[in-house]
Amino acid sequence: MSKTISFSVNSKSESPARTNINVRGFNLIVDEPISLGGTDLAPNPVEYILAGYAGCINVVAHIVAKEQKINLKNLEIDILGNLNPSRLFGTSFSDRAGYKDLQVTLRTSTKLDEGQKIKWLKEIESRCPVNDNLSNVTPITFSLN
Amino acid sequence: MSKTISFSVNSKSESPARTNINVRGFNLIVDEPISLGGTDLAPNPVEYILAGYAGCINVVAHIVAKEQKINLKNLEIDILGNLNPSRLFGTSFSDRAGYKDLQVTLRTSTKLDEGQKIKWLKEIESRCPVNDNLSNVTPITFSLN
Repeated sequence: MSKTISFSVNSKSESPARTNINVRGFNLIVDEPISLGGTDLAPNPVEYILAGYAGCINVVAHIVAKEQKINLKNLEIDILGNLNPSRLFGTSFSDRAGYKDLQVTLRTSTKLDEGQKIKWLKEIESRCPVNDNLSNVTPITFSLN
Repeated sequence: MSKTISFSVNSKSESPARTNINVRGFNLIVDEPISLGGTDLAPNPVEYILAGYAGCINVVAHIVAKEQKINLKNLEIDILGNLNPSRLFGTSFSDRAGYKDLQVTLRTSTKLDEGQKIKWLKEIESRCPVNDNLSNVTPITFSLN
């Protein structure tokens, strides 16, 4: 049985670079650093993507560790992404707009043999919602009211 | 010329559902609602994705409006996504892990004719980094240290 749940944000532009986000009663600010035209009050949009991605990996990593009888003592997750902002700014259209690649690094002091490592990571990649949306195509509809 | 810039997060698991994120000196908490096994201190991972997406659309919408001589008086951005958490929890593998679809709604009191609307939205979709990463494939590498 498929049990779909909805998530949503309501957002208001505060300036061309800053957005005020309401999500389930929580308030978030998204801004840009001064070098990208903002006021640097908060992380920028593409950094929020990495934050959500890291948070998602933490959840899945723990669920899968439990299933695979891995006693996860601690976990750190670093994510690095590279992008060329030229398309965003309209100065060049040779590169894609978003991250060209993403590098996810997990660190734990829990000792795992090579087989356990591969099995754990493979299952995390397969079951992490954010990993799915970043590594695969998702249909999106835009409308203007 | 391609001028690539890097973005990154360093994250630490605080509990199986909660993550502490350091991004360029900013600190973010990602949590899950109680219904999804968390302590509900902050938005959850997939909500952060929508927040970053909305913030990104705000930036691009303003850049493109300026280019297209649209005097954007105000802008609200709502995003809704549906997902089935069964794969995440390992209870069913019939659906994908992430958002099955995303619906983006922009609202402004600025009057635009149909041609302007289409031209503006098309350019936003084409140049928004987060829209690119959610609607297209991105190569990702996982490693465990």
